Amino acid sequence: MKDTREGVVTPKTPLSALLSVDEMALFVDYYQLTMGQADFDAQNNSVITANYYVRKIPQGQYLIAAGLEQVVHYILNLRWTETTLDWLAERGDLSTEYLNSLRDFRFNGSVFAVPEGTPIFPNEPIINVTGRSRDVQLFETYLLCVMNFQTLIATKASRIVQAARGRPVFDFGARRAHGRDAGTLAARAAFIGGASGTSLVLAGRYFNIPYVGTMAHKFVSERPTELEAFRDYATAFPDSTTLLIDTYDTLKGAQNACIIAKEMETRGARLRAVRLDSGDLLALSRHVRRILDAEALDYVQIIASHDLDEFQIDTLLENGAPIDSFGVGTRLATGANFNPRTSEGAPSALGGVYKLVESDGRPVGKQSLDEPSKATIPGKKQIYRLTDTDGNYTKDQVTLWDEDVSEGQPLLVPIIQNGELAYNFPTLQDIQAHTTAELKKLPDPHKRLTNAAPYTIEQHPSILAHIEGIP
Amino acid sequence: MKDTREGVVTPKTPLSALLSVDEMALFVDYYQLTMGQADFDAQNNSVITANYYVRKIPQGQYLIAAGLEQVVHYILNLRWTETTLDWLAERGDLSTEYLNSLRDFRFNGSVFAVPEGTPIFPNEPIINVTGRSRDVQLFETYLLCVMNFQTLIATKASRIVQAARGRPVFDFGARRAHGRDAGTLAARAAFIGGASGTSLVLAGRYFNIPYVGTMAHKFVSERPTELEAFRDYATAFPDSTTLLIDTYDTLKGAQNACIIAKEMETRGARLRAVRLDSGDLLALSRHVRRILDAEALDYVQIIASHDLDEFQIDTLLENGAPIDSFGVGTRLATGANFNPRTSEGAPSALGGVYKLVESDGRPVGKQSLDEPSKATIPGKKQIYRLTDTDGNYTKDQVTLWDEDVSEGQPLLVPIIQNGELAYNFPTLQDIQAHTTAELKKLPDPHKRLTNAAPYTIEQHPSILAHIEGIP
Repeated sequence: MKDTREGVVTPKTPLSALLSVDEMALFVDYYQLTMGQADFDAQNNSVITANYYVRKIPQGQYLIAAGLEQVVHYILNLRWTETTLDWLAERGDLSTEYLNSLRDFRFNGSVFAVPEGTPIFPNEPIINVTGRSRDVQLFETYLLCVMNFQTLIATKASRIVQAARGRPVFDFGARRAHGRDAGTLAARAAFIGGASGTSLVLAGRYFNIPYVGTMAHKFVSERPTELEAFRDYATAFPDSTTLLIDTYDTLKGAQNACIIAKEMETRGARLRAVRLDSGDLLALSRHVRRILDAEALDYVQIIASHDLDEFQIDTLLENGAPIDSFGVGTRLATGANFNPRTSEGAPSALGGVYKLVESDGRPVGKQSLDEPSKATIPGKKQIYRLTDTDGNYTKDQVTLWDEDVSEGQPLLVPIIQNGELAYNFPTLQDIQAHTTAELKKLPDPHKRLTNAAPYTIEQHPSILAHIEGIP
Repeated sequence: MKDTREGVVTPKTPLSALLSVDEMALFVDYYQLTMGQADFDAQNNSVITANYYVRKIPQGQYLIAAGLEQVVHYILNLRWTETTLDWLAERGDLSTEYLNSLRDFRFNGSVFAVPEGTPIFPNEPIINVTGRSRDVQLFETYLLCVMNFQTLIATKASRIVQAARGRPVFDFGARRAHGRDAGTLAARAAFIGGASGTSLVLAGRYFNIPYVGTMAHKFVSERPTELEAFRDYATAFPDSTTLLIDTYDTLKGAQNACIIAKEMETRGARLRAVRLDSGDLLALSRHVRRILDAEALDYVQIIASHDLDEFQIDTLLENGAPIDSFGVGTRLATGANFNPRTSEGAPSALGGVYKLVESDGRPVGKQSLDEPSKATIPGKKQIYRLTDTDGNYTKDQVTLWDEDVSEGQPLLVPIIQNGELAYNFPTLQDIQAHTTAELKKLPDPHKRLTNAAPYTIEQHPSILAHIEGIP
């Protein structure tokens, strides 16, 4: 599926597989095309800036930005093919003149963005897209769905990794993800947020993420005995066997694992781990640890999975559960905004928006008198992050784009300029390291799993002045 | 992206775009390959049946099965390309002999399944896959993620459509969906569940689903006045203008819409609708209706959107809100298992599983002593749905596959036999009609939005006998 057409940017990750280039222009909400038609008819050629930001964080007080590489690939490679244009022409709702104007579409504007893996806060600009009005609006649906999803997952992963207190966390969620893109991008975003790997091989292929595998209950239950199943597996993987011990009775499973471990020792091999996937993980992990230790198998690790999230892991480790690593599925890969301690939840989604903030140099907002929380802060904006002498975050200042600010680092960096890629995408490993380093600088009160303290964001006075001026 | 290789089934919907055929074999959790290796080494050639079913329904008491067409396309087209095998070989963990055995992979087994759009209940078999053990397990991750997701969304859509009491419901969710697949498949599943259309053009292209568009706040706020924005749009779409009236002040927006509607009347055209997207939709819809009616614009419809779901729509219509159609985004396209009346929720996922139930003719289960709810009911099973004289559902009987049952219709029908497609996929329109007709036969107590009554499912005594026999 190599794309050989002229002008197509080859991404670091072969997105051609996630994204069929031929029809990608149609991943739009139809209003983007109807507005395009109306803009075309009205000869609206204004240059605007649209801003991706998140008004409200569903869990906690920070977000980890993720998804930029996919968005940039989309923006640079978006083309209207003859097939697509023919199909739209047959529908008859858009004019031939407007459709013809899409034929040579190339984005020639600019994109500034917060690098992936950077902590970010409510109402802060994460991506600024500047260009001709009807070009900029074509990116809305794809940009939103990819940024909302990956940012949701990277954030969730960072919370889970924090709860795991240094123990590795693996993404096991593809089977509950919302389709193939979701499974693959969840593995990517989880890695950005600090996960050590994934169960999904395709994520290993595309993103060079370490992938891991244990065994399924099926492997055990289709054999006459659990012991025979364990033996078959240990024979095939003398160096990397993890045995799933809860198919019938976890404690008997642990005893069978001991038998296999002893057999492996006679061959100079070592059982790597046992996996718990049901029941009371605290009580079972203690029991299983005792069973293993009694056989001098202290080197055999315990992996736990089973509807886990940051809250469950926190409680397990708070109580001293002897678990060495965690497999986290549904609640990681769907970004569950759900607190099982209280049963309170919100939809598994991030409600980020992509809003017009500047038109032909003029700051533009949206008043939304009937729902002030949906108002848009006008102006193309930059973020300056202030730190103390130890490098820890103290507060962010959001300013108008061209304002002279003496302190702090500007967070939005050039990604695309005049339609050309102006950014060297880091590897996913570098992004993960960036996340880890930056989260260390965010003071603990903002990272608590519950009741985290809001981070201080100051809107520069010049922005506040513009809010008054909205028609 | 036309796939011209021999043996590739052309789907009714061009899935080549959703799914890059070249690497699709790698959309597996790694344990599927490690177990494959161990099965290969142990020469396990047993023929098994794996069963897709859902243990627990997160919202309500029924599910609408959806996703089968994508699953079948995957099963029939799954190939291990040289690129994929080379990549795996470089990783070094799987043997050359095992990888070679995958080179000519073709599924030659059988699939029986409940047709898409059919109501289904907890623990009932939705798909049976029968074939060689290590072939059957290759489908697990893709089958689960596509069935879990589309079934979740089709079910959610059916609840929302029910709450809307005959008023059209449109999927507006792509921007909050979990990636491109999710947005596209959510539109498909929502249509199966009864939605009238989608905002996503790609879903129109792939699935022939009607797509609709209104306008964004951007279109209004980048023009000097709301009135000018409305006029530009009405000029471009004289026959299908919907005006978004909440950018600044909804009631003034309604008055501006009246001005435009009158201008359109002088040209012999009609304003189709106004759209509300924020604020108190009950109060605003009443106000706006009065403003329109006072200008003799009773033909102008009111469309509402804004964090809607079945509960919000039910409350609005219970109170007589004069809303003619609904755009539902986040909570439809993510399948939010969230009740805003109580703030109670669960992750936006369906926890369906794919479990071994038969091996070489022998019913197989999983005991799960430490968590009985995760036990597997043994045996390849069929469902018979019993109805009263009016055709209404009374109860389901789940039997072993080959049992002679005199009453009811068997729900699982042949889809693939001996590796050949044995099913004529209905159009999406036919599937939607099937959903509607079948849901009518499900008595109301099982369809209540809250506190719905569980439907009666009887496990045949022969199945219960096998449960006793699990080792």
